[in-house]
Amino acid sequence: MSDHLTDQLSDAPAAAASPTQPYAAYLVGLADDVLVYAQRLAEWMTNAPQIEEDMALGNIALDLLGQARALYPHIGAIDGTGRGEDDFAMQRGERDWRNVHLVEQERGDFADEMARLLWFSAYQVQLQTALGRSTDAVVAGVAGKALKEVRYHLDHASLWVVRLGDGTEESHRRMQAALERVQPYLAELFDDDEASVVAADLGVGVLPSSLRDGVVEQVSRVVMQATLSLPESSKWRSRGGRAGIHSRPMGYLLAELQHIARSYPGATW
Amino acid sequence: MSDHLTDQLSDAPAAAASPTQPYAAYLVGLADDVLVYAQRLAEWMTNAPQIEEDMALGNIALDLLGQARALYPHIGAIDGTGRGEDDFAMQRGERDWRNVHLVEQERGDFADEMARLLWFSAYQVQLQTALGRSTDAVVAGVAGKALKEVRYHLDHASLWVVRLGDGTEESHRRMQAALERVQPYLAELFDDDEASVVAADLGVGVLPSSLRDGVVEQVSRVVMQATLSLPESSKWRSRGGRAGIHSRPMGYLLAELQHIARSYPGATW
Repeated sequence: MSDHLTDQLSDAPAAAASPTQPYAAYLVGLADDVLVYAQRLAEWMTNAPQIEEDMALGNIALDLLGQARALYPHIGAIDGTGRGEDDFAMQRGERDWRNVHLVEQERGDFADEMARLLWFSAYQVQLQTALGRSTDAVVAGVAGKALKEVRYHLDHASLWVVRLGDGTEESHRRMQAALERVQPYLAELFDDDEASVVAADLGVGVLPSSLRDGVVEQVSRVVMQATLSLPESSKWRSRGGRAGIHSRPMGYLLAELQHIARSYPGATW
Repeated sequence: MSDHLTDQLSDAPAAAASPTQPYAAYLVGLADDVLVYAQRLAEWMTNAPQIEEDMALGNIALDLLGQARALYPHIGAIDGTGRGEDDFAMQRGERDWRNVHLVEQERGDFADEMARLLWFSAYQVQLQTALGRSTDAVVAGVAGKALKEVRYHLDHASLWVVRLGDGTEESHRRMQAALERVQPYLAELFDDDEASVVAADLGVGVLPSSLRDGVVEQVSRVVMQATLSLPESSKWRSRGGRAGIHSRPMGYLLAELQHIARSYPGATW
């Protein structure tokens, strides 16, 4: 690789202004989690076991997309770049995304998705409850609206996990296997990275580790009702998303997400 | 969609100059077939049943990539745009690609790939033999080198089809199913579209329909040796690639292929 490309590769992310302030970086993590998960959930359209479920997962995806859209312009104001939602979604390279690995994993079977949605929604309920008390009025406002939505998402996932876990022998086995598979991606949700520590100190955000007990308690109740068991915590834990270090599926997700915008630079609609 | 985007969408492919001359268009089809199939075959790296097979399919992909690279700058000279290989590979929208649907289909199982490689290589052997007599010295030169390569590809696919077809009950069943699945994508290889008629008249190219008998005869021999049977020709036939109308997997393939180049416009290495 010549210096020419090296320069461009290192310049381009900088030109796209990766947020340096921990405050903004914390909010980028919040927004990226829901945008990336919205993208994954939207893949269920035409692929869910029932047409009503296509619609349900599509609606959940739209709720999460809406939360991200509300946050990005606010972040662009905080970090001084003035970037809008399209700049954040379409113009950032992989290293500038701060979502957790959980949400970027490829779509598995329906049980896998319900296991992921259960954990993610239980996490979101705790998170948005806490963010309702944020000193940042925009964050608090988004959280107030989001809380109603993610409570519904949690109900939806819980109903499916119970139905599958307490269903046939086959559905029980597969729902239990799905809980095992999602396990390595949970720890990262509760890691206190530098940005979250600063955001919590400012009263803007909340320490991720402080959410863990409430989330585990909630998920445990559902898992018990579903006659399933919570897996042992995994030895291998997937981490790095909050620092922009992503797992293999992330590049493909961005390629698909950004292809049209990258192909027609500056296009508007 | 506002006029703004509509304009950009219709302008952009024109700015990327889709070849209007049938001569150039014919060559684009030849080059796109091998570039797109190279991309699909490269996906087998780390996914083939043996590490030697990873390498074999990777090498076949590189052969095909080399054929495409030799043709694109020649096409850019013929159509007067001066485009090089990167312009063709990285800067064209989906509608400007002229490859057949066969090569853009998603990677199936290993038997699926061997069925596709058998047909594609048998086709390439006939094609490159004929193109060796092209009045276009560059096309004839590329064909001379390519013929040695695609003969080896045909041998490789034939060995696997025989091994799997004349193997266990399971491998026989799956190899036969693979032949059935590839069937709807074969007709398009032998369609005489306008560009190929003009190219054949000029002595530059060859009528696709004239290649059919030789290809079918070659594949039939292998299929018989493999104790398999050639499927009835399918009622539904996938078509449109030569006119830039592609099947669903093509957009995803381009998104992945072009993402880095689109993300760093003008980057060189």
